[in-house]
Amino acid sequence: MELLVALTRENGREPLHAQLERQLREAVRSGRLASGTRLPATRVLAAELAVSRGVVVEAYAQLTAEGYLVTRRGAGTTVAAAPRPARAPTPPPHPRPVAEDFHPGTPDLASFPRGAWLRSLRTVLRELPDDGLGYADPAGAPQLRGALARYLGRARGVACGPERVLVTSGLTQGVALACRALHARGARRIAVEDPGFTVHRAVAAHCGLQPVPVPVDVHGLRTDALAALDADALLVTPAHQMPLGGVLAPQRRAELLAWADAHDAYVIEDDYDAEHRYDREPVGALQGLAPERVIYAGCASKVLAPGLRLGWLAVPQALWAALEREKTLDDLGSPLLEQLTLADFLERGELDRHLRRTRPRYRARRDALIAALARELPSWRIGAGIAAGLHVVALLPETVDEAALLATAAERGMRLHGLSWFRVTPGPAGVVPGFGNASEPTLARAVAQLAQVARAADAAR
Amino acid sequence: MELLVALTRENGREPLHAQLERQLREAVRSGRLASGTRLPATRVLAAELAVSRGVVVEAYAQLTAEGYLVTRRGAGTTVAAAPRPARAPTPPPHPRPVAEDFHPGTPDLASFPRGAWLRSLRTVLRELPDDGLGYADPAGAPQLRGALARYLGRARGVACGPERVLVTSGLTQGVALACRALHARGARRIAVEDPGFTVHRAVAAHCGLQPVPVPVDVHGLRTDALAALDADALLVTPAHQMPLGGVLAPQRRAELLAWADAHDAYVIEDDYDAEHRYDREPVGALQGLAPERVIYAGCASKVLAPGLRLGWLAVPQALWAALEREKTLDDLGSPLLEQLTLADFLERGELDRHLRRTRPRYRARRDALIAALARELPSWRIGAGIAAGLHVVALLPETVDEAALLATAAERGMRLHGLSWFRVTPGPAGVVPGFGNASEPTLARAVAQLAQVARAADAAR
Repeated sequence: MELLVALTRENGREPLHAQLERQLREAVRSGRLASGTRLPATRVLAAELAVSRGVVVEAYAQLTAEGYLVTRRGAGTTVAAAPRPARAPTPPPHPRPVAEDFHPGTPDLASFPRGAWLRSLRTVLRELPDDGLGYADPAGAPQLRGALARYLGRARGVACGPERVLVTSGLTQGVALACRALHARGARRIAVEDPGFTVHRAVAAHCGLQPVPVPVDVHGLRTDALAALDADALLVTPAHQMPLGGVLAPQRRAELLAWADAHDAYVIEDDYDAEHRYDREPVGALQGLAPERVIYAGCASKVLAPGLRLGWLAVPQALWAALEREKTLDDLGSPLLEQLTLADFLERGELDRHLRRTRPRYRARRDALIAALARELPSWRIGAGIAAGLHVVALLPETVDEAALLATAAERGMRLHGLSWFRVTPGPAGVVPGFGNASEPTLARAVAQLAQVARAADAAR
Repeated sequence: MELLVALTRENGREPLHAQLERQLREAVRSGRLASGTRLPATRVLAAELAVSRGVVVEAYAQLTAEGYLVTRRGAGTTVAAAPRPARAPTPPPHPRPVAEDFHPGTPDLASFPRGAWLRSLRTVLRELPDDGLGYADPAGAPQLRGALARYLGRARGVACGPERVLVTSGLTQGVALACRALHARGARRIAVEDPGFTVHRAVAAHCGLQPVPVPVDVHGLRTDALAALDADALLVTPAHQMPLGGVLAPQRRAELLAWADAHDAYVIEDDYDAEHRYDREPVGALQGLAPERVIYAGCASKVLAPGLRLGWLAVPQALWAALEREKTLDDLGSPLLEQLTLADFLERGELDRHLRRTRPRYRARRDALIAALARELPSWRIGAGIAAGLHVVALLPETVDEAALLATAAERGMRLHGLSWFRVTPGPAGVVPGFGNASEPTLARAVAQLAQVARAADAAR
């Protein structure tokens, strides 16, 4: 036993019985103490280890309670015959993308207002009554739901009182909850934009809704294609189509809602980055036109930081109970301190301040990216998307192979999204570089590097 | 139009065109401007309102883009025929329980270490590189996964490296993700404790697994009943059965795992409050005996505060990819700042410090509750559960009707959980008062009030 166990009195933080327990448990787990092995009597082991018998008795009792040892009156203590853990191979660590400069959905992380966020959290921790830390309304903290209703009404034209705002863990959870609620209500086929955001298409499919692609042009989703589809739900990005960058045209807004009414279909409005509009005021949310037909989904990922994982839904009255239930049975509600911090942050006007500060920066970055592309890669054509968001689309000339280009870029540690990643149906080749999280000089350098990549990919053909 | 619109130059924060837009949008929404109404020409309205024509042009353009107005060359601007929002009735506010004194799952919220938590967050915000605020590994921040692997190994005997720790939004999301992954793998019937935690039974059912009740006694789940069930998964609370309070006996641990092996069934171990043991060291997790058979689920709700919504899974190797996918498609990961704050908090030993400080307090509260029940309600019998957790079970004499008792308690603003809330199959009547979040004098008062309630309920019969 001395070979298996080494106790020390110099480890002030771990009592002797705990050391013995831990080491015996590890010996059983690793197989060094095999099933059926009879352990020394407590008196004998205590003498061997020069500890009091109570230490051994306690360790044996503990490991017996945990199922590692078996104690039978008269037969002493043996190692239990319980299943042994298979020693699993350690999987490789999560792959970390090398160069994030072009990530299309990441905002300027360096400008995240850490000071203001900390100030709001400090206020929350100072003022929150103790009971505010307990189990709470799964739909969200009333303070945040109120602050969001006011913000969304003002900034996005969303028509929704606090009683119909549901706080989610990012926009993606909002889409998941909405899809599950629609599935439970009988929906089976959801119309999605093609090209569109692949992750949310996967979320819908995972929730049991079959994605049915709808073509997209420069004015957003082609509503004339809806009638021919046997769809009973719709997922759409009206303010800034992801990825092509169009705004859903006025006439199409009306057509889309007429289709939804005629088919009793609900519309999920993915309003992921509408606040970032550089040439005019952002176009208001579709939800404002038909609050009982549209489930509005937004989040803090593009306006503050994706790592916050804070999102929200504005929910039609008829779906409220179903959505609340989905949230409850998914996670019992989102983190309270973070919710209350955002509420304080919104009510102090910090988000408006932050957007005023970042908007000219994004506009300059977008201009720099487009200028660099025109300079370095003149045969690539910038897509017709509006001056908005955190990414642009560059369409490739027919001589350039998208897959080969992306493969060469990946080899050089550059992560770039191709248009094909967004597509269901094949279409023209293109790339979707983001400009949110890279400075103007970095973008210029990255585009120069991309031009080298394009030449290398071309030479390799 | 002047009746519909009132512009002011004194509102320095909202430009005139934005005021006009907002008021016209509201007029369309409310129906004051009906579909088809023709609006005045921009020149005419500008003169009427004494603003420049550009203000009106901009407001009309914005509302046309949003779909509220239709502009046709030659025909002027009219109100669109889009669906009007039904004015939904405001639902009543979320009911707030009146007296939470007896809530069985709430820890001492007053002792939440706000200062230490804020210190950890401040450290995180100071040291986190900017890129740390972006989209991250959906399985969780590496820092927290490492800290949890060390904590769980040390405090709970969980055998799991960081690469198999998955961070969740509370324990409930962990159960939901596990149930979805098992369902996708073909599981259809999940054995659950009866009585057991009703919320997680509902979560399992919602994820497509039919709950199959297994009886429970003072030694935990009755493993002899497993063989007769056609179940292919199991949800269990081995360290402290919820609600009856037994520890799963050593022999049953082995039997349970043998059953799981024989049926290729996975076991979800709900380890919700194991850290709170008052008479001896907590019994180690079942997962330690069979890490490839048990999905371990824990959380910060009982050791810190439910409002944090932080939980974790230790996942068998064979299920890792499925669980990671479930998390990704549910919410893309849990909030990063909160994760990193908990990691720092754990690594500083703050959780151990907090548990050392709260354990004697809970023990004293438990003693006070049991003493008060014995004094005020001597015919009620305290259940045989171990000295642990945040609640006790009191079994009612046959003359007391549980439903009538609870109804009378509710009338007096006292929220009390009855045993029947936890049951699938009817059984002996009882109540499950919690002691975590109430001081000793409060508990004594609450029990005195409960005795009055019992007399009133008895008199009403």
